[in-house]
Amino acid sequence: MNTPLLNERDITFLLYELLDTASLPLRERYREHSRDIFNATLQTARTIAEKYFANHNAKGDANEPTFDGQNVHLIPETKEAWDAFSGAGFLAAGYDYDEGGLQLPEVILRTAMAYTNAANISTTGYLFLSIGAANLIHAFGSPEQKTRFLPPMREGRFAGTMALTEPAQGSALADIRTYAVPQDDGTYRLFGQKMFISGGDQSLTENIVHMVLARIKGAPAGVKGISLFICPKFLVNEDGTTGNRNDVALAGLLHKMGWRNTTSTVLNFGEQDGAVGYLVGEPHKGLNYMFQMMNEARIAVGLGAAALAYQGYNHSLDYARNRPQGRLPSSKDPLSKQVNLIAHADVKRMLLAQKVYAEGSLALCLLASSLFEDQSTAPDAEARQRAALLLDLLTPVVKSWPSKYGTKANELAMQVLGGSGYIREYPVEQFYRDNRLNPIHEGAEAIHGIDLLGRKVGQQQMAGYQVFRDTVGATIAESEGVEAVREFAAPLQTAMAMLDGVTRNLLNVMAGNPDLGLANATVYLDLFGRVTMAWLWLKQAVVAANGLSVEGLPEADRHFYQGKLHATRYFFHWELPETGPMADLLNRMDSTCLDMEEAWF
Amino acid sequence: MNTPLLNERDITFLLYELLDTASLPLRERYREHSRDIFNATLQTARTIAEKYFANHNAKGDANEPTFDGQNVHLIPETKEAWDAFSGAGFLAAGYDYDEGGLQLPEVILRTAMAYTNAANISTTGYLFLSIGAANLIHAFGSPEQKTRFLPPMREGRFAGTMALTEPAQGSALADIRTYAVPQDDGTYRLFGQKMFISGGDQSLTENIVHMVLARIKGAPAGVKGISLFICPKFLVNEDGTTGNRNDVALAGLLHKMGWRNTTSTVLNFGEQDGAVGYLVGEPHKGLNYMFQMMNEARIAVGLGAAALAYQGYNHSLDYARNRPQGRLPSSKDPLSKQVNLIAHADVKRMLLAQKVYAEGSLALCLLASSLFEDQSTAPDAEARQRAALLLDLLTPVVKSWPSKYGTKANELAMQVLGGSGYIREYPVEQFYRDNRLNPIHEGAEAIHGIDLLGRKVGQQQMAGYQVFRDTVGATIAESEGVEAVREFAAPLQTAMAMLDGVTRNLLNVMAGNPDLGLANATVYLDLFGRVTMAWLWLKQAVVAANGLSVEGLPEADRHFYQGKLHATRYFFHWELPETGPMADLLNRMDSTCLDMEEAWF
Repeated sequence: MNTPLLNERDITFLLYELLDTASLPLRERYREHSRDIFNATLQTARTIAEKYFANHNAKGDANEPTFDGQNVHLIPETKEAWDAFSGAGFLAAGYDYDEGGLQLPEVILRTAMAYTNAANISTTGYLFLSIGAANLIHAFGSPEQKTRFLPPMREGRFAGTMALTEPAQGSALADIRTYAVPQDDGTYRLFGQKMFISGGDQSLTENIVHMVLARIKGAPAGVKGISLFICPKFLVNEDGTTGNRNDVALAGLLHKMGWRNTTSTVLNFGEQDGAVGYLVGEPHKGLNYMFQMMNEARIAVGLGAAALAYQGYNHSLDYARNRPQGRLPSSKDPLSKQVNLIAHADVKRMLLAQKVYAEGSLALCLLASSLFEDQSTAPDAEARQRAALLLDLLTPVVKSWPSKYGTKANELAMQVLGGSGYIREYPVEQFYRDNRLNPIHEGAEAIHGIDLLGRKVGQQQMAGYQVFRDTVGATIAESEGVEAVREFAAPLQTAMAMLDGVTRNLLNVMAGNPDLGLANATVYLDLFGRVTMAWLWLKQAVVAANGLSVEGLPEADRHFYQGKLHATRYFFHWELPETGPMADLLNRMDSTCLDMEEAWF
Repeated sequence: MNTPLLNERDITFLLYELLDTASLPLRERYREHSRDIFNATLQTARTIAEKYFANHNAKGDANEPTFDGQNVHLIPETKEAWDAFSGAGFLAAGYDYDEGGLQLPEVILRTAMAYTNAANISTTGYLFLSIGAANLIHAFGSPEQKTRFLPPMREGRFAGTMALTEPAQGSALADIRTYAVPQDDGTYRLFGQKMFISGGDQSLTENIVHMVLARIKGAPAGVKGISLFICPKFLVNEDGTTGNRNDVALAGLLHKMGWRNTTSTVLNFGEQDGAVGYLVGEPHKGLNYMFQMMNEARIAVGLGAAALAYQGYNHSLDYARNRPQGRLPSSKDPLSKQVNLIAHADVKRMLLAQKVYAEGSLALCLLASSLFEDQSTAPDAEARQRAALLLDLLTPVVKSWPSKYGTKANELAMQVLGGSGYIREYPVEQFYRDNRLNPIHEGAEAIHGIDLLGRKVGQQQMAGYQVFRDTVGATIAESEGVEAVREFAAPLQTAMAMLDGVTRNLLNVMAGNPDLGLANATVYLDLFGRVTMAWLWLKQAVVAANGLSVEGLPEADRHFYQGKLHATRYFFHWELPETGPMADLLNRMDSTCLDMEEAWF
């Protein structure tokens, strides 16, 4: 069975029917591009993903990296994948031509990475971190730092990491302890330990550029005393050649349930005389800078989760289509032919749920990438501002919803396969194990609920929220004019009004009692995510309904659009109604969890 | 950290406060028993579990069984655990004294196994299957079969398996193809292949007794042509000594995501001249007989899921109590001391959810074991009949609810630990991997929804359902007289009435259109399970409230009872309201899944 990584028809739909990617070449930055070039780029990515990433997804899982005390060893296919991806120019793709880049729009780059994620999320991990680290230096580094580090990072000779978490600190960055001592030459010496650093050591590149959060000695407590440093594994000489080993040592590898081909490391900084670090930007503003990389990584996490959900969906769909199993309840004759699994209503339920989670997640992440694009290259200033506001608001949802429901999709894929889903002889159990990291890293789920409700929704007099309301409202208005989807306008209107009410109530309570107001922020995140996804599905349904009205439509397109319509129906009939109990719980400021005493557990 | 397997206070509560286990010695069969003997037995089980099962839970996961082409190799601790358990008499515990047993009540035996499951579900797998296989022979075997096979099975010299599933058939037993050819000597020769046979080969016992479903040549099609056979790995001579190898060959081991220390096998029967099999009972009635073992296994699966949920809860609770992390939203001072994880409302949510899933699941399974007991030893005939009816009705819930929500509990345990939850350096990720089998084996979830709605609810003029209604009603009535829990009476009443309505509507539709009526049976199973658990939590809350009213109660007991009360509050405020959308969906006979066409995926 040759199971596709994603679904070519859906990619076309998302990029060119749902989003307006085809118009990007009208923008100054992209005038040398065209839809054909975008497609050829994606075709290259898909070929690389199939040939160099999918080939060792199971092998990397079964043969995780080892550390011999000196060096880390990865299976050799990992390096081939890294070389193929960087050799095709993808590590530099987002940069301007004069920086050695391809001036590729963000949404095309991220779609390209959806393929590699679907093929092998573990190997892709090294790539997305390196792209993010380079982008961080690009945005906030000094000219000298850019000159020294960016060319080799774009060429794939250096990789990058984000070194935030410490053994005693998980999501609570305010309390990190790694510290930096200023030196006379303007550099710093770093001392401390970082944990769960993905790609913190490997055998892919000649150097690794760690982006490290640390406190300069004497800095204020909390998040306002955190600075950002570039701290390479090997020092880089003036002439760009690789110099001495820096005082950054691999203390050990961690052994994950999934994502096994990405090293997860404990790193010791400054076991001897301190690791040489270069301050990025101004002191004490490191967390602000790092938020760029974190936000980028959050979208990338959502995208990876979406891609894994898609893989599980595709595999379980193939299985369900080809496996004869039992008969329908109405058929009592044991001599009648068995039906395929897909004929059973409950199997269809599990496939439909996966379809809305996988396709919906991918739509959400590509929308986010499109907003990321628009915030800097949309033609008019207001559009740029609205894109930035909406992206900022939605980032917690983009990170969390695909992570939670993509993982759930993979659980359902396992269930469709039954016993076969539970054994390593089939690929789906690995998807679940891989995906399960996504609700944890880049801020555990609860962090994003607090970010959304405690910061994003209320900030700038709810400007971002207002853009969201307008955007949803526009889709509702549009849907009212489309016969096939009109039925969904009122339920989404109701859900949006419910979200408005809940939001108002929570913001009021939070002003006086933040502990109570934020107690159920995770539920708020889920509620907000469901409304967002209902909107995105309705938006897709409008496009599909319009597509169906074209005369002489090929049968395959008709089925595809019908699938989008029916998946929307599923979302509105099965998933959206659960917002009711959530809103009730939030509106009554349920304090059950808050009130639970430790001694009662 | 010395994390307990279960919770001693809760075991006492469940056995002696919620259930009336203390009165069992009043029954004729148990008159030589006492509460002290029960407790000593459980203490023995706990000690064995801690010493011989917990010791190799991680090791067995990391070193799964291997097959060298001749023999299967398990880590040696597995055999030590088997010997300790059988040496203490637990394999024979349920049998009468004159059969070499301990006449131990079912509920005590199953509580004992909750300890071994919590310590090592994979090693426990061999035991519960062997007990089940022996019980099956005991119930339906001929005197000669009992004489030949039961003594060594009770002594732990022979193990047992259930060999139902075939490569081309998962849950659809009607279509199994293994066949049996009658011989002149009254035995049969079996030919066919079985798959996913747990314990199908191992290095623990001198023989393995496979309980095999097969069709006698010429038998009717479907479930009415299935017979049950005893088919040992080695033939057993007249004098009880082990004879020649039977024609049952291990084709290979399967490699599971979890449960790795239990072999999962593909077995070939009759590669040469046929595997010698002994017909149990009458021809073509095999599935009826096997239902005894399946029902027993279904309760055992629920119990195992409950025990794993409990372990995850205990570990994440320890972690949350001891890990400083961040501050409450109301505390803005970065110099203030960090709080422990458990102080955060969202962490309390994840712990409370685990508490209701784990403790609720264990309560449900011990209730089922108590009903199992009562159906044969309750003093009066009506009580025996009511217990049998209720157990039969609830078996799909007992199998499925702990499997689904126990797995969810383990997912939450991982989330509480964050990054640490995802790495094999901590035990919780294994619990999830182990537990994920439980919603699959012994009938995937959908099978139990169809069993509940399609068979159990309607059968015998809804006699079982009526017993359930009466039982729930009695708890509601009782709760109305108890101040601290009165608030829960009305919501449960409402939920029960909702279930009544849904059940009536579905049965009506099913009579004319079984495909539509059963289309959403999995949702019905969840709805039914939630009402059942709401009842069980209210039942616990009544006991706790009464316990709290005792003067001079020790503080530890007060906290324990408060925990039960607050967990009930959580269940009623957070879990029960989700029945609303479920009932709406079922009442409107939602056909979204049924209507989805294969081509639209």
